[in-house]
Amino acid sequence: MRPVMLLHACELFCGDPIRAMPQAIAIELFHNFSLIHDDIMDCAPLRRGLPAVHEKYNSTVALLSGDAMLITAYKYLVRADHQMVTHLIDLFNDCAIRICEGQQLDMNFEKSEILEIEDYMGMVELKTAYLFATALKMGAYIGGASESDAAHLFNFGKYMGISFQIRDDWLDSFGSVEKMGKQPGGDIIRNKKTFLFIKALSISDDFTRQQLKWWFSDGQQHSEEKVSAILEIYSNLGISAITQDIMESNVAIAMQHLRDVSLEDRKKYLLADLCKKLLHRNE
Amino acid sequence: MRPVMLLHACELFCGDPIRAMPQAIAIELFHNFSLIHDDIMDCAPLRRGLPAVHEKYNSTVALLSGDAMLITAYKYLVRADHQMVTHLIDLFNDCAIRICEGQQLDMNFEKSEILEIEDYMGMVELKTAYLFATALKMGAYIGGASESDAAHLFNFGKYMGISFQIRDDWLDSFGSVEKMGKQPGGDIIRNKKTFLFIKALSISDDFTRQQLKWWFSDGQQHSEEKVSAILEIYSNLGISAITQDIMESNVAIAMQHLRDVSLEDRKKYLLADLCKKLLHRNE
Repeated sequence: MRPVMLLHACELFCGDPIRAMPQAIAIELFHNFSLIHDDIMDCAPLRRGLPAVHEKYNSTVALLSGDAMLITAYKYLVRADHQMVTHLIDLFNDCAIRICEGQQLDMNFEKSEILEIEDYMGMVELKTAYLFATALKMGAYIGGASESDAAHLFNFGKYMGISFQIRDDWLDSFGSVEKMGKQPGGDIIRNKKTFLFIKALSISDDFTRQQLKWWFSDGQQHSEEKVSAILEIYSNLGISAITQDIMESNVAIAMQHLRDVSLEDRKKYLLADLCKKLLHRNE
Repeated sequence: MRPVMLLHACELFCGDPIRAMPQAIAIELFHNFSLIHDDIMDCAPLRRGLPAVHEKYNSTVALLSGDAMLITAYKYLVRADHQMVTHLIDLFNDCAIRICEGQQLDMNFEKSEILEIEDYMGMVELKTAYLFATALKMGAYIGGASESDAAHLFNFGKYMGISFQIRDDWLDSFGSVEKMGKQPGGDIIRNKKTFLFIKALSISDDFTRQQLKWWFSDGQQHSEEKVSAILEIYSNLGISAITQDIMESNVAIAMQHLRDVSLEDRKKYLLADLCKKLLHRNE
């Protein structure tokens, strides 16, 4: 998804997506490096339905192959005109550092007692949205976009990325087994502090808040019963509709930024279409 | 040590070490990134006499701060003339990937039953020597050296690095507490497969080889007795002198490469001096 966006963004301004191919590869390598390291930190057993690298091999292999992928990402990143390289690396580094910060915030967040929607949004912006935004901005830059157009594409990616992550949270509670290929409720079983959970905490009365906290405390292993209880609370609070509203308002901001790019709208259908597909996947 | 070498190498050719300062910082950041990640993999409790990052904080902090340091290394690396950046990144990446390979070989080596001096030397070349070599080559390149001179400095660093690592192994068995600030024999207690151990295995008779393997098998916890027994075997086999010979022959190759650099010898005293200090530390 991210490399395709980068290529589309480049094509939008110069007509030739191939010019940005090395940077598209760099973004995808970087994304996979971050997944491999995240899976070590999260002790995640699976990735894309298959054993995670640290499970299939071991933590040393996962750590070192992640490092090697990050290094290799830079190898591709610099395959551009000399005068572009420093700026490309600045864009990429700024994003990469923020993603590391986002992952640390995420780890802190999972242990924190105080959960605010603002903190969640800040973490998602760093951990997920920044890479979409940077992929688009890099593509635009390579394609020769103006600073203003590159900034609009950056924001298009940012708000789309936020929406994408919130949708990911929503799907785990309200998606169907058939479309997702897995049982919903995994986040609930793992006590994951999703948008839905934090929103529910923030709008519920004291009694419901205690119930939510009790189910999400350690040792609540009655999975099916727990998922049902949490989904019932979400349903009583209207969490699905609230979440979809937030998603849609982020998509609206994203689409406005796409419209603000100073090109004919008919040229933008590939990115608009990609955004639509991304946010309706598995529905 | 590595950034100082890089600065000296640059100064040697253009008279101005400061020109290479960002790259010296990049090399030092990279070195520390690799130490932080290595310490996670080796479960090392201490680094430079203080708790390792993963011990003082936790593995997540160590992993992420290592990642962030690697990313930051690139930030400094590209602070150079546009036309130099791609080549600097190529040099750096080539070295960085080899160091990851070297660490993986080291991890495999520690578990391997078959130990050959050639494999040890190959691993040391990747894991230790390459960074010294690359630091010097990068400094030379920034200073405007010819390809031939840069290659000689690279080899000067490579053979010095090999010698440095073998000396590190030697010091653990034959250094003194006063000079080292710690008790020798740590490698022996931890069953580390050093140059000394592998060399001893390769030249000992069947009986001694069985003794060495027995002491280095799991569960031999009588530390003092074990260190004495191994040191006695090393002494009977003349391992100290053999190791010093190998170190000196590597230093001799290194110094020949330094002499082959097409500059007056009096200009090279800083690097020659650094090499001397490095290889006589803690004696």
